[in-house]
Amino acid sequence: MVNPLDATDVILKILAGEVRAASRLIRNLEDKLPGAKASVMALFPHTGRARIVGLTGAPGAGKSTLVDRMISVSRKQSKTVGVLAVDPTSPFTGGAILGDRVRMKSHGEDPDVFVRSLATRGALGGLSAAVGDAVHVMDAMGKDLILVETVGAGQQEVDIINHSHTVILVLTPGMGDEIQAIKAGVMEIADIFVINKADREGAGRLENELTSMLNMVSEFPGHWRPPIIKIGNAGDEEAFARGVENLAGAAEQHFQMLLNTKLMDERMQRKAKMELREALHHILLDPVLNDLAESGEMERIAIRIMKKETDPHRASREITRKYLDNIQASLRS
Amino acid sequence: MVNPLDATDVILKILAGEVRAASRLIRNLEDKLPGAKASVMALFPHTGRARIVGLTGAPGAGKSTLVDRMISVSRKQSKTVGVLAVDPTSPFTGGAILGDRVRMKSHGEDPDVFVRSLATRGALGGLSAAVGDAVHVMDAMGKDLILVETVGAGQQEVDIINHSHTVILVLTPGMGDEIQAIKAGVMEIADIFVINKADREGAGRLENELTSMLNMVSEFPGHWRPPIIKIGNAGDEEAFARGVENLAGAAEQHFQMLLNTKLMDERMQRKAKMELREALHHILLDPVLNDLAESGEMERIAIRIMKKETDPHRASREITRKYLDNIQASLRS
Repeated sequence: MVNPLDATDVILKILAGEVRAASRLIRNLEDKLPGAKASVMALFPHTGRARIVGLTGAPGAGKSTLVDRMISVSRKQSKTVGVLAVDPTSPFTGGAILGDRVRMKSHGEDPDVFVRSLATRGALGGLSAAVGDAVHVMDAMGKDLILVETVGAGQQEVDIINHSHTVILVLTPGMGDEIQAIKAGVMEIADIFVINKADREGAGRLENELTSMLNMVSEFPGHWRPPIIKIGNAGDEEAFARGVENLAGAAEQHFQMLLNTKLMDERMQRKAKMELREALHHILLDPVLNDLAESGEMERIAIRIMKKETDPHRASREITRKYLDNIQASLRS
Repeated sequence: MVNPLDATDVILKILAGEVRAASRLIRNLEDKLPGAKASVMALFPHTGRARIVGLTGAPGAGKSTLVDRMISVSRKQSKTVGVLAVDPTSPFTGGAILGDRVRMKSHGEDPDVFVRSLATRGALGGLSAAVGDAVHVMDAMGKDLILVETVGAGQQEVDIINHSHTVILVLTPGMGDEIQAIKAGVMEIADIFVINKADREGAGRLENELTSMLNMVSEFPGHWRPPIIKIGNAGDEEAFARGVENLAGAAEQHFQMLLNTKLMDERMQRKAKMELREALHHILLDPVLNDLAESGEMERIAIRIMKKETDPHRASREITRKYLDNIQASLRS
């Protein structure tokens, strides 16, 4: 139910699926405008219906093409789609390049496909929180499927992708060396492995490496052994389409498995904890950091640290003492 | 000067360069033991002498071999060396693999080479802070050169590498696609580009791409145009040694440029600000998060969020109200 106090125009418009209102709120969240968070809080009770699928993988692995085709598969089933493109490796473009790629392809004119990219400007570690909020907005808009696309497999990307029900890791042949280095981190988060460009040399070796890696796992949660989906070159239309169908099928199976086991609860609890940590960061730390930056105090303290007149730990204790009152005041507002 | 109150045994031992005391403190910092931060505060006035060089690049780019050889170059000049290996892409191994590689090579028996790897367990974004503290410890030990080695080029890696005076980005041929995607983020942080395994096909193309990328920059801070150092296969001993000498020379030139311009101050100010932000996180957020986790309250709130009885923002406001007193108490301790 919409709380009468929160039943502002923008909330109702977003719940009705209006693109302009949703775009504006996502932009306001990125820009950390006051009131944006309150809108997400008002939308929160109306979320939880969308199916959220995360895709990650190295740059050049072909994620955007896959996203484009997964949209097509969903649209054929009359599902509405939201796409969120995030590129934490690039502080300048944000996910703009990824997002534009998708937008420029087949779905630019489709009103039931909503594509947004998130910039990382000024995020200071708050990128995952911004992703979570943008996903909530798309969810509240009524999108059936939300695709979150990101680059890489570091901790930040893991946080971003942990907003999803199902995580797809896109690999390409010729990554032999890399797989050794990333496997420990990725094993934990990938529900489905894709070998993209599987017509290339080395696809067999990559599949073997993934298989032996999976063979080392003694027990999979929910008995879900992550499948390895091979997808051929996008040039070979028929083989490519078949691969994407297989991928969509595997994602559907994974979602059903979550529903049929206690894993959905576990995963949603993990997501809730992550969002709680991010919200605490927003309330406890952001006001202090913003004020320090705007007042020029950050600059002055940095110079004192450089001159060894103080050290970061000592300075932060002094700052905290000073700011506790401000935080208390912000809680009353 | 050592403050009499801080002149504990461990501080004096670290200032005397004792490996065991330093190792223990770094481990205690990783484990967030109480008192470890206070030791870093006591060491802080004795830091600032070491030259800190960061190396980053994709897995398999050959960073460990380069680090190994850069140690040799420094040891020939009778400089003592600290190496910190950090792998944020792997929550399980930490930098253990990187660190062990270095350790197992030529310097395992050299008492003037101190190698440590940092694990990411429980870091929750605090990895960069742990790196900063470990660098301070090595600096206080009296190491002349500290090499910080990390994987990738995401925001977290940028934070890690920003503890350095000089940042080296290690690339290998055959990264054509990737360079387009990473260049925006990396342009900002790399002081020196290395094309490693430069005997491989594609080295020329990679060099051309880097050159045209650099040609687009209208003005370099301190007139430092990042040089591109080509290093041949480690198998060709003579060519490889020459490449490493060139790299060491470029790093030395970069450091002299920093000293001769206002850039050293700018860079040290950036580092001080980053450390201040991290220390604020440690004081304001960590006690709350730790207590929520230990008391089981995190679990209970996550379940309420899942049931839509509350939302992350509302819950975090309630938590903050409750914890402000605790934070105030921690400041008095």
